[in-house]
Amino acid sequence: MPTFTSSQLANLSTNLLKAAGATDQEARLVSTYLIRANLAGVDSHGIIRLTQYIDCIRSGLIKAGSKFEIVTETSSTALVNGNWGFGQVTCTNAMQLAIQKANANGVSAVGIVNCNHIGRLAEYSTMALAYGMIAFIAVSADPSVAPYGGRQAVLGTSPISYAIPAGEEEPIVVDFATSTVAEGKVRTALMKGLSIPEGWIINSAGRQSTDPAELYEPPLPPEQVKLSGALLPAGGHKGYSISLVVEALAGALTGNGCDGEVKSQISNGVFISLVKIENFVPLDSFKSRIDRLIRSVKNSPRAEGFEEIIIPGEPERREETKRSKDGIPVPDKSWESIRKVCSDYGLDAVSLTHV
Amino acid sequence: MPTFTSSQLANLSTNLLKAAGATDQEARLVSTYLIRANLAGVDSHGIIRLTQYIDCIRSGLIKAGSKFEIVTETSSTALVNGNWGFGQVTCTNAMQLAIQKANANGVSAVGIVNCNHIGRLAEYSTMALAYGMIAFIAVSADPSVAPYGGRQAVLGTSPISYAIPAGEEEPIVVDFATSTVAEGKVRTALMKGLSIPEGWIINSAGRQSTDPAELYEPPLPPEQVKLSGALLPAGGHKGYSISLVVEALAGALTGNGCDGEVKSQISNGVFISLVKIENFVPLDSFKSRIDRLIRSVKNSPRAEGFEEIIIPGEPERREETKRSKDGIPVPDKSWESIRKVCSDYGLDAVSLTHV
Repeated sequence: MPTFTSSQLANLSTNLLKAAGATDQEARLVSTYLIRANLAGVDSHGIIRLTQYIDCIRSGLIKAGSKFEIVTETSSTALVNGNWGFGQVTCTNAMQLAIQKANANGVSAVGIVNCNHIGRLAEYSTMALAYGMIAFIAVSADPSVAPYGGRQAVLGTSPISYAIPAGEEEPIVVDFATSTVAEGKVRTALMKGLSIPEGWIINSAGRQSTDPAELYEPPLPPEQVKLSGALLPAGGHKGYSISLVVEALAGALTGNGCDGEVKSQISNGVFISLVKIENFVPLDSFKSRIDRLIRSVKNSPRAEGFEEIIIPGEPERREETKRSKDGIPVPDKSWESIRKVCSDYGLDAVSLTHV
Repeated sequence: MPTFTSSQLANLSTNLLKAAGATDQEARLVSTYLIRANLAGVDSHGIIRLTQYIDCIRSGLIKAGSKFEIVTETSSTALVNGNWGFGQVTCTNAMQLAIQKANANGVSAVGIVNCNHIGRLAEYSTMALAYGMIAFIAVSADPSVAPYGGRQAVLGTSPISYAIPAGEEEPIVVDFATSTVAEGKVRTALMKGLSIPEGWIINSAGRQSTDPAELYEPPLPPEQVKLSGALLPAGGHKGYSISLVVEALAGALTGNGCDGEVKSQISNGVFISLVKIENFVPLDSFKSRIDRLIRSVKNSPRAEGFEEIIIPGEPERREETKRSKDGIPVPDKSWESIRKVCSDYGLDAVSLTHV
């Protein structure tokens, strides 16, 4: 498995995206986010997506150069139309709009419709930290999760992210799917021939299963995500309830649609909500309280079997430190696909990483 | 165990609260909410709280007649000071303020500090339904839950509620603690001599336990909630993460404080956030989408062992129908305490229920 530095991958990714029709600005932004996801250890939203995005440009699902439009707005809210541009570009612009509005009014809510895959949510929620804001972002997507008590994929994984500024401590950055695990973890177990814990998936007969193969329609291994069973919601009815809320905020409120209405494999309905802290309490006192909270959580006595108590966002920061030094490993199969797509555009992947 | 109609309990509760110093308006509103909690089957937030509130009035924790003050506000936000009046009154006024602001601006966020126990969260989130809004409310309280990987109560149960309007279907009403269960369920098992499932509590040695006694400091049964172990977060690190967010929104952002700073046994930091649907999409189209979502979830095939798929809010509505007909059972011990407190004020509980 080859390993690259982030600037090597950035050069490769930016050039490939531009060759496929992305503007310079789009190519740089999308590449930066993909590589940051890899650095954070979230490989499912990293460079592995590059060939998928190229496919989407080719098939017209991603319209390079598309401009973001405001459908309707108030001083504190907006619904924006991504016009099927790159999700990362649309969502970055929408987050900037949300920050402006929250800065002026103390709170804002922005929804996005006609938006392609935006990638890792923490990328956006953390943008508001520097402005002294608490950020929330939620995303609706294709059905892959059963409701509590069900066995059919009706709900999306409905990921949510929160970013909360701290003072001397690192910020709290929550970013997770409301299913027990993301589909990628089941796929990884299948590839490695491992069984999975109870509570991850339910099969088409309605029974929980520890066999990852039971999530998918044959033939295996799955090339595309075609489900026979379904992922299970985290915490039973609690994860299920939050998933319904995400469907309402990111699917129904944006007009992107709920269960099965989603138009393309990688379309995302997006809902963003920001609160400016200074409009409630002085920012310093807020940050001191969060520092104290973080310390009292981290320093509290541990449960059996745990070496430490981890604050949301910590594991990703550690991985970033590690991979910034050691490089980003790219699985052989992904690297092969990238090389092949590069050659379609007359580019040589290997020489693009010689920077 | 005696059983009463809601008007019998309302007459009793209103008269007792007035005798203890509440204004007529306060007494009626608090009584209404307590009884509605009983009707919904949420007895932990029902008439059982009456004697606790009377104690709080006597000890000065609840200041009857206190006025709600705005500490700071923008057109879309406010921080309000409850001045230690009845939490129900403070939170109702704060929700009305939030509704006004969201009505004018499309979104609002309101925090409350110096607020007594507000009771059942769904009481407030559902107030915004009639205004075509999606409501979120979160509450911080005394530590009783261990962080993921910890064994000491550092976080509150951090309950949250969402209310989402539907069209022909009933609204989606989410209302739960971010711990696996509320403390009351462990207490009930202890009283009945039953063991509890794995995943509910951790003991002071840091091991998960199925013995409800291991949650509490001796002597048992616990008169007050004094914990030796801790409740566990729902869904492992996911419930824990949401609990940290609730501490930030309802504890730090309001100035009410986080872990252990909370000033009285029943003080609540409160955070409310509303979104007006019409500012994003036409209300009718939103409601149709939610109807469709509800139907496709409810009509999807069931998992083994489930008789139906339940939408959040359904169980409470069913219990309300049942208890409106059959009456509200009041445990003997609670009834005895209520009779005793009534007699302290020269009131006869039995004749107050002859209405």
